Amino acid sequence: MAKNLAHKLIESHLESGSLEPGSPIELKIDQTLTQDATGTMVMLEFEALGLPRVKTELSAQYVDHNLLQTDFKNADDHLFLRSACRKWGLWYSRPGNGISHAVHMCCFGKPGKTLLGSDSHTCAAGSMGMLAIGAGGLQVALAMAGMPFSLTMPKILGVRLEGELPPWVSAKDVILEMLRRQTVKGCVNKIVEYHGPGLKNLTAMDRHVIANMGQELGATSSVFPADEAVQAFLRQQQREEDFTELKADEGASYDEEDTIDLSSLEPLIACPSSPDKVVKVSEVAGKPIYQSYIGSSANPGLRDFVIPAQMVAGQRVDDRVSFDINPSTRQLLEQISRSGDLGKLLESGARLHQTGCGGCIGMGQAPASGRISLRTVPRNFPGRSGTEEDEVYLCSPETATASALKGEITDPRDMEMEYPSFEEPGQLPDMRPSLLAPQEIPTEVELVKGPNIKPLPDFEGLPEKLIAPVLLKAGDNVSTDEILPAGAEILPLRSNIPEISRYTFSRVDKEFYDRAMKVDGDCFVVGGENYGQGSSREHAAIAPRFLGVRCVIAKSMARIHRRNLINFGVLPLLFDDPADYDKIEQDAELELDNPVGQLEPGKPVEITIKSSGDTLKVKHDLSEEEIETLRLGGLINKTRKEHPDIDD
Amino acid sequence: MAKNLAHKLIESHLESGSLEPGSPIELKIDQTLTQDATGTMVMLEFEALGLPRVKTELSAQYVDHNLLQTDFKNADDHLFLRSACRKWGLWYSRPGNGISHAVHMCCFGKPGKTLLGSDSHTCAAGSMGMLAIGAGGLQVALAMAGMPFSLTMPKILGVRLEGELPPWVSAKDVILEMLRRQTVKGCVNKIVEYHGPGLKNLTAMDRHVIANMGQELGATSSVFPADEAVQAFLRQQQREEDFTELKADEGASYDEEDTIDLSSLEPLIACPSSPDKVVKVSEVAGKPIYQSYIGSSANPGLRDFVIPAQMVAGQRVDDRVSFDINPSTRQLLEQISRSGDLGKLLESGARLHQTGCGGCIGMGQAPASGRISLRTVPRNFPGRSGTEEDEVYLCSPETATASALKGEITDPRDMEMEYPSFEEPGQLPDMRPSLLAPQEIPTEVELVKGPNIKPLPDFEGLPEKLIAPVLLKAGDNVSTDEILPAGAEILPLRSNIPEISRYTFSRVDKEFYDRAMKVDGDCFVVGGENYGQGSSREHAAIAPRFLGVRCVIAKSMARIHRRNLINFGVLPLLFDDPADYDKIEQDAELELDNPVGQLEPGKPVEITIKSSGDTLKVKHDLSEEEIETLRLGGLINKTRKEHPDIDD
Repeated sequence: MAKNLAHKLIESHLESGSLEPGSPIELKIDQTLTQDATGTMVMLEFEALGLPRVKTELSAQYVDHNLLQTDFKNADDHLFLRSACRKWGLWYSRPGNGISHAVHMCCFGKPGKTLLGSDSHTCAAGSMGMLAIGAGGLQVALAMAGMPFSLTMPKILGVRLEGELPPWVSAKDVILEMLRRQTVKGCVNKIVEYHGPGLKNLTAMDRHVIANMGQELGATSSVFPADEAVQAFLRQQQREEDFTELKADEGASYDEEDTIDLSSLEPLIACPSSPDKVVKVSEVAGKPIYQSYIGSSANPGLRDFVIPAQMVAGQRVDDRVSFDINPSTRQLLEQISRSGDLGKLLESGARLHQTGCGGCIGMGQAPASGRISLRTVPRNFPGRSGTEEDEVYLCSPETATASALKGEITDPRDMEMEYPSFEEPGQLPDMRPSLLAPQEIPTEVELVKGPNIKPLPDFEGLPEKLIAPVLLKAGDNVSTDEILPAGAEILPLRSNIPEISRYTFSRVDKEFYDRAMKVDGDCFVVGGENYGQGSSREHAAIAPRFLGVRCVIAKSMARIHRRNLINFGVLPLLFDDPADYDKIEQDAELELDNPVGQLEPGKPVEITIKSSGDTLKVKHDLSEEEIETLRLGGLINKTRKEHPDIDD
Repeated sequence: MAKNLAHKLIESHLESGSLEPGSPIELKIDQTLTQDATGTMVMLEFEALGLPRVKTELSAQYVDHNLLQTDFKNADDHLFLRSACRKWGLWYSRPGNGISHAVHMCCFGKPGKTLLGSDSHTCAAGSMGMLAIGAGGLQVALAMAGMPFSLTMPKILGVRLEGELPPWVSAKDVILEMLRRQTVKGCVNKIVEYHGPGLKNLTAMDRHVIANMGQELGATSSVFPADEAVQAFLRQQQREEDFTELKADEGASYDEEDTIDLSSLEPLIACPSSPDKVVKVSEVAGKPIYQSYIGSSANPGLRDFVIPAQMVAGQRVDDRVSFDINPSTRQLLEQISRSGDLGKLLESGARLHQTGCGGCIGMGQAPASGRISLRTVPRNFPGRSGTEEDEVYLCSPETATASALKGEITDPRDMEMEYPSFEEPGQLPDMRPSLLAPQEIPTEVELVKGPNIKPLPDFEGLPEKLIAPVLLKAGDNVSTDEILPAGAEILPLRSNIPEISRYTFSRVDKEFYDRAMKVDGDCFVVGGENYGQGSSREHAAIAPRFLGVRCVIAKSMARIHRRNLINFGVLPLLFDDPADYDKIEQDAELELDNPVGQLEPGKPVEITIKSSGDTLKVKHDLSEEEIETLRLGGLINKTRKEHPDIDD
């Protein structure tokens, strides 16, 4: 039978389970990726496992998030991560090398391999025929220890691309069109597989743009075939030997199907403050802007900087606009410097920032009060820019640059200039020598732990009877950015759970932490649809757990966050009838009797609202393995039980 | 009679007074410079004066300090400053153009002119035959309003330079040698005038390095002649028409004299945590380092980046070192990008940061806990890097780069490489088009004030009788960085006195603010030698005044801070007998009867220590004009009284 590519990738790594959508499966993981904002916790978790060395084919640790260093904390984290890499045999990518996803693709991306990363945009590597999945840090730590990765077998959504993009329309507009169609929860528990004749006009880096923001669709991953475009990319990176052709079989079918005619697309833009609030640029054109932001993991390619440079050549951007250039990798910055494109950007009035994630995760570049920021980044969740009540729009580099020149939101087709041509250089400098390779024979290395690096707290299992208040009732699409914000003030606390927990839900409800301190015991959180979308940060599960959250009941949940809750012993439940959401008020006291004993796959549980005496039937979608994890109080306890040889 | 250059510059701008050292003089100010960290307050002060337009030949506002934008505050300040420039006829230099002192020199520096700047390193422009002085913001606002600048006529210290610098020794080592000889208070109330045959081997930018850090000597200013080197610099900047030759007369004499034989110098380094703790690099060689920092107003020249680039070409810096490159100007970044030197730095593993002041004022790049940072910046006051208990050393780009390559403090002469040659390009791109020029006919402009921009509080005059506690007793050389720190957390509050006052003395005494709130009334501060050295920030006077500080008694005081105290109605007194310092304990209650009525030039005042009943004679060095200012509660009140036509 003709197989699609996603099934081929899963089959070749399947350690248990079947390809039946919805069934639990386990996958062998070939490579892992960690970044600094999640990686310090991963390394503390790996330390707890007590192994001498990682057991993957390749594990790489990047420093790309916490680059501002407003005090000792970020710098201490970098030293800790470097020492962990030396100790356990990981590649270490120092600050200044660039964004994990782009650097990993350039240095280590390999068709046919699986990649698990403690960053939700890990899926970007699907651009080159990999099965690349974002996960909570603890699961990445276990993958580093050689254990398989558990997940629910997703449905495969085949998206056939036809035609060719018109001038001024680029890969970002393709994924914005997907978001317009699917919304931020349309692809939960799905892998999006792109195929069809339109692919031949998309480079590997174009596909990275689309695969990256598959995360914004809620997808488990996105995959593209490894074809001539991927071969050309590997040749450019001086790694052609890593190429293997990998495609869906002729006539393969998908669980769901969709088609995009690329030639019919026009410049699109996501309005504040969700990536799926997509409209045509022309519908919002004319609004004055404060900022135009180029860069991030969502538009990291050379063309994403060269096209803007060609557009502004010999002109100056509007003097009211902050035109912020965020190089994605060291290789890219070297290249645009050498080619003269950096000079064109600087002459136009651009501000060049340090290479890395930058303003995309609120590490600087926050916009002014009440002003519009246009960004090529993947997300515009409320306040993620660092400015509360921000007005962030997501768009292509073409739209961002046209708008910088005009000082207002502008459809790039209205610029009365010729669409710049761009040709990928045949070869770029190999970036691997910029990374610190693992030691073949690890020497004795001491972990360097600064005063802000605190051990992970111990958590016990669920109580016999859970009688506790609803400490927060949240709405739909609450992202992990709202559960535990990033940004320059909070990101430096990622290695310190007691300290970072003070900011839990601070963007949604500034009183949450004080209430939790007052209750000083167990509590519930109630959420709407798509609870926990966005970033993979497990801190959004650990910090609430640290404050006493033992159970979250929501209408639906995002994949990574749901699993992070389980990993740290928080019970994720789903309203059987969404109307029950309205029956629970914030502060209501709930009773859940024998929470672990009640849990059986497919069987609902009963929750009583103490004030009214009403009893609700609440469902769950937990597998046997997940129920066992909850019973033992989380994945660390479970791993210790199953592997008693592992040190404490 | 043969005149020295400093006297020529003063005479040509003297509005009142005589050249007798110590006597009060008033100078006509031709140009002003403001940066964003002090400039928002200057603009609020200028607004209070109610004038339609600045009255200087040229006023320029730079944005170079608050570039991190971790929330809305910095961005709001930038918009406010831009609107102020449009309204009142100033040049506006947007974020990304670079450090005020370097950009001003490139765009507007003009031999024979006076420049007053609300940044202590304004003196850097003395490199090109200007009389350039740093001052508190309020005095700059008054200069913008066309009023003369009052100061004490300084002594002139002539420093004769002989010989030629050996390989691996550069301008930074010259000023470090001056600091070794003079200490941080050796040049208070002096202008340092450099002359002699050694000058012919120092470019205008080399002289900038030396003039800039004249501030660290405590000097009122530093001056260099406008000679062939300055002409070549102006030609390079496409402004040769702005050149006028200007030198000391043959046989001119000085109040004090010193000589440096350049050929005898070797690489020097200032140890933590004062710019005058200078030793030979060889004396501290071998200590492992965390960071090597290139850039800042103290080493902003093209050669300060090209020499490091040539040194690292084809090599990689030690993988434990953060090699932080901070471009000083847009012009410089364009040039090193074009020349390939940026490529060499990046290939070596350097991190490129955004153009501006950066880590020098603690806006990012803080070192790790307990680790050594080598910097080409002008200051290493405790904690200024952003890391408490930091270990910052000041050195030349040569020493910083050699140490980055080795991973430890290294005398660059030990590198076994040839000293790279550097030749200044004949011409560089004119940077003025990157700035927003004043409108010839200002149109109606509304000031853009974000929610963090608060009006300056009103302050009343000194009370009839001052009976109040000593809220803090500080030691020697307390800098304005310790009175009111900079850094990423506090700098964004520069437009908001009530908020920023919470950090008053926080680096010296974390309880100060709480004590001030408890006292909730007038208080004294006692200081040692050289109280208030360093940055010109008037916030270090305004915030203590806001908290109730009405009088500071110290052994000696730095020039700019002393005047800032007067400007905001705080009485600066000096111990007649330094031993009296020991008689006053922190928390002691002091009585000063009729503080204003007692003040007469040259006459001491009496202070009673209430607990012991002891009476101390305390002197002051206030002029008539300064006493009158204090009588009226500060310079704003005095200006309003003398210019009743000015709006409130």
